Amino acid sequence: MELTFTLICSLLALGFALRLAQWVLKHDDGTPEMRTISDAIREGAEAFLLRQYKTIALLTLPVAFVIFALYAYFRPPTSHDPLSQPWQLASHAAGSFIFGAICSGIAGYVGMFVSIRTNIRTASAARTNLNRGLQIALRGGAVSGLFVVAMSLLGVGGLFTLLSAFGIAAEKIPFLIVGYGFGASFVALFAQLGGGIYTKAADVGADLVGKVEAGIPEDDPRNPAVIADLVGDNVGDCAGRGADLFESTAAENIGAMILGVALYPYFGLQGVLFPLVVRAFGLLASIAGVMVVRTTEEGDPMQALNRGYYLTTVLTAIGFGIGCYWLLTSPQAPEAWWHFWLCGLVGLAAAMAFVYITQYYTEYKYRPVRSIATASQTGAATNIITGFAVGLECTAVPVLVIAVAILTSYYLGQHSGVAGAGLFGTAVATMGMLGTAAYVLAMDTFGPIADNAGGIIEMSRQSEAVRLKTDRLDAVGNTTKALTKGYAIGSAALASFLLFSAYLDEVRNYGTPLVAVDIAKPEVFIGGLAGAMLVFLFAALAITAVGKAAHYVIQEVRRQFHERPGILAGTEQPSYRQCVDIVTAGALKQMVLPGVVIVGMPIAVGLVFKGLGIGAEAVAGLLMVGTIAGILLATTLNNSGGAWDNAKKYIETGAYGGKGSEAHIAAVVGDTVGDPFKDTAGPSLHVVIKLLSTITLVLAPFFL
Amino acid sequence: MELTFTLICSLLALGFALRLAQWVLKHDDGTPEMRTISDAIREGAEAFLLRQYKTIALLTLPVAFVIFALYAYFRPPTSHDPLSQPWQLASHAAGSFIFGAICSGIAGYVGMFVSIRTNIRTASAARTNLNRGLQIALRGGAVSGLFVVAMSLLGVGGLFTLLSAFGIAAEKIPFLIVGYGFGASFVALFAQLGGGIYTKAADVGADLVGKVEAGIPEDDPRNPAVIADLVGDNVGDCAGRGADLFESTAAENIGAMILGVALYPYFGLQGVLFPLVVRAFGLLASIAGVMVVRTTEEGDPMQALNRGYYLTTVLTAIGFGIGCYWLLTSPQAPEAWWHFWLCGLVGLAAAMAFVYITQYYTEYKYRPVRSIATASQTGAATNIITGFAVGLECTAVPVLVIAVAILTSYYLGQHSGVAGAGLFGTAVATMGMLGTAAYVLAMDTFGPIADNAGGIIEMSRQSEAVRLKTDRLDAVGNTTKALTKGYAIGSAALASFLLFSAYLDEVRNYGTPLVAVDIAKPEVFIGGLAGAMLVFLFAALAITAVGKAAHYVIQEVRRQFHERPGILAGTEQPSYRQCVDIVTAGALKQMVLPGVVIVGMPIAVGLVFKGLGIGAEAVAGLLMVGTIAGILLATTLNNSGGAWDNAKKYIETGAYGGKGSEAHIAAVVGDTVGDPFKDTAGPSLHVVIKLLSTITLVLAPFFL
Repeated sequence: MELTFTLICSLLALGFALRLAQWVLKHDDGTPEMRTISDAIREGAEAFLLRQYKTIALLTLPVAFVIFALYAYFRPPTSHDPLSQPWQLASHAAGSFIFGAICSGIAGYVGMFVSIRTNIRTASAARTNLNRGLQIALRGGAVSGLFVVAMSLLGVGGLFTLLSAFGIAAEKIPFLIVGYGFGASFVALFAQLGGGIYTKAADVGADLVGKVEAGIPEDDPRNPAVIADLVGDNVGDCAGRGADLFESTAAENIGAMILGVALYPYFGLQGVLFPLVVRAFGLLASIAGVMVVRTTEEGDPMQALNRGYYLTTVLTAIGFGIGCYWLLTSPQAPEAWWHFWLCGLVGLAAAMAFVYITQYYTEYKYRPVRSIATASQTGAATNIITGFAVGLECTAVPVLVIAVAILTSYYLGQHSGVAGAGLFGTAVATMGMLGTAAYVLAMDTFGPIADNAGGIIEMSRQSEAVRLKTDRLDAVGNTTKALTKGYAIGSAALASFLLFSAYLDEVRNYGTPLVAVDIAKPEVFIGGLAGAMLVFLFAALAITAVGKAAHYVIQEVRRQFHERPGILAGTEQPSYRQCVDIVTAGALKQMVLPGVVIVGMPIAVGLVFKGLGIGAEAVAGLLMVGTIAGILLATTLNNSGGAWDNAKKYIETGAYGGKGSEAHIAAVVGDTVGDPFKDTAGPSLHVVIKLLSTITLVLAPFFL
Repeated sequence: MELTFTLICSLLALGFALRLAQWVLKHDDGTPEMRTISDAIREGAEAFLLRQYKTIALLTLPVAFVIFALYAYFRPPTSHDPLSQPWQLASHAAGSFIFGAICSGIAGYVGMFVSIRTNIRTASAARTNLNRGLQIALRGGAVSGLFVVAMSLLGVGGLFTLLSAFGIAAEKIPFLIVGYGFGASFVALFAQLGGGIYTKAADVGADLVGKVEAGIPEDDPRNPAVIADLVGDNVGDCAGRGADLFESTAAENIGAMILGVALYPYFGLQGVLFPLVVRAFGLLASIAGVMVVRTTEEGDPMQALNRGYYLTTVLTAIGFGIGCYWLLTSPQAPEAWWHFWLCGLVGLAAAMAFVYITQYYTEYKYRPVRSIATASQTGAATNIITGFAVGLECTAVPVLVIAVAILTSYYLGQHSGVAGAGLFGTAVATMGMLGTAAYVLAMDTFGPIADNAGGIIEMSRQSEAVRLKTDRLDAVGNTTKALTKGYAIGSAALASFLLFSAYLDEVRNYGTPLVAVDIAKPEVFIGGLAGAMLVFLFAALAITAVGKAAHYVIQEVRRQFHERPGILAGTEQPSYRQCVDIVTAGALKQMVLPGVVIVGMPIAVGLVFKGLGIGAEAVAGLLMVGTIAGILLATTLNNSGGAWDNAKKYIETGAYGGKGSEAHIAAVVGDTVGDPFKDTAGPSLHVVIKLLSTITLVLAPFFL
């Protein structure tokens, strides 16, 4: 019944996504000139994704093989193994890893597929009707949002059904499909990292040679890197974030189901399936939210999007109430349902708080961005110093929100009448936070679509009035992109806490009496130190990778300008494709090192400390402290980047001399510095946080 | 006997410091013009320290009062209190807090006192003889180095003697004098923070208006902020670092003595006094190291300083062997002494490794700084991105060194034949690392002295040949300053691990069965999250404070240039004093907020979680994860700052177009950004790491 409900809702959401896609596609796709540009973007994006997936496949298969071999030959048996034969367990682990990887890849592909077709239609509609432009962009984004969340439900629910059909006891299934989460995060990491490097290498490269050296405006068609820059929005923001949030919801589903197993005496199977059901309610709520968004020519598109978000939140809250009342009642714990409902509301409130905090720190209405703009008057150095300080400062309130959310939901769970349900309470809060995921992802994908639409309008030299319209959409898109990052990091923080306990459960399954992760032990302290260091090192490598890839772009653009002077004169067409090829190769080459480091390090620490007899606990230290450091560093990088970006935009509205002033030149430096922070290292760290959890979960048996 | 040896060595070192001071002072103090400048620096530095100490006193007294009241009225009694009356305990706690605060203040004052008198003599000597200049600067630095370490020994040893005389059992004394460490770190925090804000506000302010706006060179006498800039070197680098390292050695002494108490059955009082004795050997070794430093006109001063460092290290290693053989032998554990000797050697090796790693990441001979210089060719943005990535990256190897040092010494301790001596092993490694503290502090103080000497030569318009000489000393000083920061953070990391266990011991003294700091508990995880956030927030506030204080300077310099055009023409003398006054007031005002936050937050977390019944463990989480985050963030800030600085210097040697080129302009931006990183936030974080330990140690009874 619960499973059926989930499957029906997921299929409904998929069908609805299909309808939305049809609706988007039937819109006008503009002038031939616009189509030429859009086609170039599409080709570039598809070519990148194709080559990226080949690279990822080359990395995934060996890992799958290693997992199979480890589970088949080196895994210590437990007294309550769900399957008797090691090779059966091994095939399940490796199989669900590959399945998760494929699903994650599809999620990314769909995000990109829709956005490269929606951008031109948004541009075309915006020429006459702002509301239509807004709706096309949002509904295009919703295709990917609904698809990603529905697929994560179908994946987990489908695996569940499949394994039940094979006669495996339902409460043992979650432990079998942890590989699914690892597969999803493994692919999400490389998708986000490769896409993030691509988008910022192209952006930084295009800006440095175009704006700074040649003095031509942004998105000018004479710049050979301009198409690569637009491609980057699709492969970095759409494909990357799609894979990221797919992974979040999948990992969180599994983690919550594992916790639900512990409540079997109270709720039976219903507790295990509860996460799927409330997620299904969230899908329905998101559909309603997307459909109510409309604006007028003079209206504020951001307000329209916010209205949709509020409606989604309210409906999800109601859905949570229904889900809790339906599934989490038990004669032994009659009060439990409303306690868990409150946990869900805590999560929804935390999501909203994250959205507001991010707005405060990255919008130019407020003090932080204004202070960066003021500091730009005394040059680039003070702009950078102030922006970085804002980035560090803005970790404070989110941490308080996380603290309050975890503690409140933990205590609600503890007092629900269900013994030992504290962690399940935090799990329900996490579900609440991720309840609106489909809508938030739609808002997020809106960003690059609007950005691309603006680029297409600019490159096809449309009138100033049209540009103003797409600029308004683009500005809103920048905000929604920033909000999603705040949301993603908040949900990663909550979800990680959930996955910690899954890790500890898994370790205990093997009979290891791991009662505590005692960070006062030197080995655990060092594990923690290594985890935090890993996060810093990863960020360094990701940022360096952008610099290296951008260098290829800079050289190529310079070469084209130098060898064919007609380009700058406007008499000759630059070779966009060559630039796209170069960024593609560069980004894929550069994503390997940071990815391998982040996957290899937890394994190395685990094996070293295994030798010292304390592997599982030291790895737990690495996982938890690494997560803390990741949350803080990602928040710092995301928000400082967003704040620099908007400080520049604020000056462009005319403050401190406006465009071209000394302050503006300084602010452009800050904006460029922030690019790899906010679009490469920061978002990749979201995935890293979850990857640390899923990789340690899958490899836990080998650290004992 | 042990105590007598320690006291004699300390007095010997003090006497020697006095002789060195006499030797330095008898040197020629230059031309009247040089004296005018030097007098202005001295006046400014003394005025700042006087006002700073008044402010610190105003902050210290209420804290002492609160400690007294807490210990007298709210402290839960324990079965083995060293004193029977609460008011007695309270007076000891508050008294040792004040005593520690005063000692720390004296340590800072002495550092400043010597350096403002040595700078002019170094300048004067360097006019004719490079070796003499080097020796004066180093021996001036050694006065402060020897004084600071000797005083920390006399303070702890003296308190010990005093309390013994009052009939308190020797093994209970360390617990009574933990307030001493808190007092020392409390003052060190404000000394380093206020001095760090001062020095960088003056530096950034002077550079932005002088170099960038008015186009006059660095240290030009027409710049009204130039004296304030030179004053800053003395109050930030000398006074601040003096208080910092005083605090390190004092806190580490007490922490190690507390651990020694646990080994009472084996070594009796000798184990408790061991830390003091080996520190005394380190003092003797440092004296020898300082005395062998000499160079020739063509020699490399850095090599000369390194020779002294190697000698100090070798002699300290021998002293450790003697100390271990003398004090750590017991019939029950005949093998113990050489195990602990090896621990000490591990610490000495770790210190050396930190010095080398810091050199690799901050000197322009090596890849990291070169890569920043290369990136400067494409502008300020790529310079900043690359530099920040270098800063993040350079956390990796130091963490490995810390990990190896902690683990090796822990296992050596465990296998020493003494039961439960693992932690004592890490304590001995920490002592080893801090064994060369006096010499390292001498090298560190060398930096600002050489910097000031260069400034005096520049401002008194000496010949180019003389400038080249002081420039060489100055360049070496920049290196030694960077090395000391690496050394300080490494020793803070090791010492903190030692203080964790002191905290846990203290908590257990009150009968709380705190067997583990279980970071998998939500409260402890949140404590950890709060600790890491606190470090980020503190860094943000410290960096912002520099910006605000610099703003006052900028306005003042602009005002003087504007109102009195004769200044820039060279016909009128600027008012240095007014600038000095303004920075003084600004820095003192701005240091309060970050300081209060860092002191208040652990208390707040402790009290909130006390209400939830898990105060002590949550605070332990805050302490340990906060320490990890502090180590990483401080390393990032210190080394990125140092690397930016030297990337600029590398370009000034002629690379990529040399001075005045586009690359140089970009590199100047990076250098300016790095200033508050490496000289305010980074060094203050060293103190924060230790302050977290000492404050939680003192307040532990109230979190239960």
